[in-house]
Amino acid sequence: MTAINASLDTHAMGSTTTTSFVESANVPGSNFPLQNLPFCVYRPCSSGVPFRIGVGIGSLLLDLRQAARIGLLQGLSAEQIEACQHSQLNSLFNLGRASMVALREHLTALLRSDSMDIETVKPLLMEQSQVEFDVPFAIGDYTDFFASVNHATNVGKMYRPDTPLLPNFKTQPLAYHGRASSVVMSGDTVVRPRGNYRDGHGGELKFGPTNRLDFEVEIGVYIGRGNPRNTSIALDEAEDHIAGVCVVNDWSARDIQSWETQPLGPFLGKNFATTVSPWVVTLDALEPYRQPAVSEAQGEAALSDYLRSPRNQVKGGLAIQIETYLQTPAMREVGAPREMITAARFDRDSFWTVGQMVAHHTVNGCNLRTGDLLASGTLSGPTERTEGCLLELTRGGTVPLTLSNGESRRFLEDGDEVTITAFCALETGERIGFGESTGRVLASTPNNLGKEQS
Amino acid sequence: MTAINASLDTHAMGSTTTTSFVESANVPGSNFPLQNLPFCVYRPCSSGVPFRIGVGIGSLLLDLRQAARIGLLQGLSAEQIEACQHSQLNSLFNLGRASMVALREHLTALLRSDSMDIETVKPLLMEQSQVEFDVPFAIGDYTDFFASVNHATNVGKMYRPDTPLLPNFKTQPLAYHGRASSVVMSGDTVVRPRGNYRDGHGGELKFGPTNRLDFEVEIGVYIGRGNPRNTSIALDEAEDHIAGVCVVNDWSARDIQSWETQPLGPFLGKNFATTVSPWVVTLDALEPYRQPAVSEAQGEAALSDYLRSPRNQVKGGLAIQIETYLQTPAMREVGAPREMITAARFDRDSFWTVGQMVAHHTVNGCNLRTGDLLASGTLSGPTERTEGCLLELTRGGTVPLTLSNGESRRFLEDGDEVTITAFCALETGERIGFGESTGRVLASTPNNLGKEQS
Repeated sequence: MTAINASLDTHAMGSTTTTSFVESANVPGSNFPLQNLPFCVYRPCSSGVPFRIGVGIGSLLLDLRQAARIGLLQGLSAEQIEACQHSQLNSLFNLGRASMVALREHLTALLRSDSMDIETVKPLLMEQSQVEFDVPFAIGDYTDFFASVNHATNVGKMYRPDTPLLPNFKTQPLAYHGRASSVVMSGDTVVRPRGNYRDGHGGELKFGPTNRLDFEVEIGVYIGRGNPRNTSIALDEAEDHIAGVCVVNDWSARDIQSWETQPLGPFLGKNFATTVSPWVVTLDALEPYRQPAVSEAQGEAALSDYLRSPRNQVKGGLAIQIETYLQTPAMREVGAPREMITAARFDRDSFWTVGQMVAHHTVNGCNLRTGDLLASGTLSGPTERTEGCLLELTRGGTVPLTLSNGESRRFLEDGDEVTITAFCALETGERIGFGESTGRVLASTPNNLGKEQS
Repeated sequence: MTAINASLDTHAMGSTTTTSFVESANVPGSNFPLQNLPFCVYRPCSSGVPFRIGVGIGSLLLDLRQAARIGLLQGLSAEQIEACQHSQLNSLFNLGRASMVALREHLTALLRSDSMDIETVKPLLMEQSQVEFDVPFAIGDYTDFFASVNHATNVGKMYRPDTPLLPNFKTQPLAYHGRASSVVMSGDTVVRPRGNYRDGHGGELKFGPTNRLDFEVEIGVYIGRGNPRNTSIALDEAEDHIAGVCVVNDWSARDIQSWETQPLGPFLGKNFATTVSPWVVTLDALEPYRQPAVSEAQGEAALSDYLRSPRNQVKGGLAIQIETYLQTPAMREVGAPREMITAARFDRDSFWTVGQMVAHHTVNGCNLRTGDLLASGTLSGPTERTEGCLLELTRGGTVPLTLSNGESRRFLEDGDEVTITAFCALETGERIGFGESTGRVLASTPNNLGKEQS
């Protein structure tokens, strides 16, 4: 122990109880310091073995399955130790928030600079760059909210210049059900979808690959323990039902969406792909980054009781900063880095908190299940280059977005790669990173399933 | 064999190869003749044992799990025999349509009047009245279409008297994603949901139990084998991806729905409960009840190629007759039977065929998975008492529906029980029944989950 402690005097920040023996976790700007410990499911690249549960620390991740098997989780319950050996996070998070708090405390002790188990833990660590990730939960239902006033207003203006924000917006979180089957992992490709749409404003109806492919910048939360049907989750209990946070790109085909959306909302314009980041960042890790709830500070309407609480008012918001990057084929060709095209902030740009989303979702008795994904909807800020999608950034495709290499975009072109990344940061240097949601657009390739394949 | 054949001369109809040794299957009007053989998952009432797969025959059902275990399925593949022992139908139907055709042929031979295995099969038969059913598939995603011209027109009139039917309606099947978690089995109760809504037309916004609880009469299909993401299912292959048909009641809270629905469609107004019937009736059983597709006969627009085929045009429709019954608490009190309040017909009242729904759903590369539920949307006919929901039957609640006992309904009241049943019938007496979707409305009971429960 003495030798280990001595070596830690060189750590960039913090004491031996707030730093990790994994040096990359202590570097200023690290996404995965000891205070984060986000969960994922992964396997070594190209190994083809079953996915297993991991926890991020610095540039590495800890193999929870192996940790469970060699007795490193002793002291936790048999249920917890068993669930750590699954290929998805559902069983683990279904044990409830108190269970996850205990697990994170246990993992913190294992990974701290003054850990008593450093030599035992080290062989269970793997470089994140050497693994591939899977969608961390079996997602039962995916719900997409519409939580940003700026987004709702910017898009509303295109249809209703006089009343861009509908009267229901500030009375309750609006949402629709998205497609769970096509929620895919960061890195999965996105094939340009085909569909029916009007070619140009009021033009002829045609069928073909979308001409208005877009991204949508969103924050998502996974449900931890759910609720039985015909019960509701109160606002002050809502966060106990949230497993953690991820970054979401809800790809959209604006022309297909526009033609189909009345009267029942988006369908084929959205359900071809939704890309999530690999990591589940717990709310416990985000505790230092709390902010007041916008709805309670700025809402004009008197909210229904189930959407209000003193706790939510003071600290319902999460100060998550979100950056979106574009890399075009031309950039890749010359080795140019991706270019940041927009940046938003969750606590500022979402009218509703994650707690309010959960409370609203269940107020009618709807049951949530472990692993359900609730996304915020497009997060747009109030100023230029804070809009969360090209539809807004280019004013409906009328004002092209100019890139630094001279290229421009109205909507996404084949080969474009969109990366959304997020972090929380304090002026004192503390930081929690969320990792990335990235996806590259492939050209549309008609691929009907033939009899031989079905 | 001789003795058995002799006893069959008394059968009401058919020869020994088209009748069953289960006498109730041969009675005129039976829902479950030998030609049906619908699938379900069930267990003996109050037994608490795991659900198992069954096949309906007359008033009985055959225990497929036990049939597999005692060797009665010999001749089928090991995969089929294994999947017959599961607690849900997903693995079995994931084997594909050809596999299901072979299984049904095998079961037909077992259950025929001239079966060689009557004495072995008999102990595996159980009265349907002695069992409880579960939702037959693990439903990954539930999609609700909007396929009835009459429904779209009737409801559209309430909002847009001049243009009730939107211009996109006849160009492609419209749909939205519903909630999979709250798809429940026939017989499960429906608690009146709470939510925000305007009290009366343009009245003040309030929170409380819905005042406009409604049913929606729908036909659903479960997906058999799915398709990988980024592939499409061609119209002429679509039915090979359909496991079978069920009856659906998509309960709706019209006031909650009305307040939330713009701009993203229904959410809390629908996702508290969707009640399905226990049985999965295969398309093979429905072959004699084929009808032309309405969209190809009556459509004005030139449909995109992926929505047209000669086969669909001639026989894409399914002549399923649907009857909806209401039983009020007052009727129950005096032992009065339920009263039929409306009747529709799927082939006539759905503009789109089930094949077109599948083709459209996947034309953008969206992946369907085994067990996904696609429902038709409310099926309304062109005349009085063929409308598929109270919103239409009572003209938005303005003209109460009068019942034969003198009661009336604008919307559903606590204690009301709604039963939807369906069948196909030929003039020659052949008939296929679908069973029932039934649910009783319970009073709203605020039931927030407390910490101790979560």
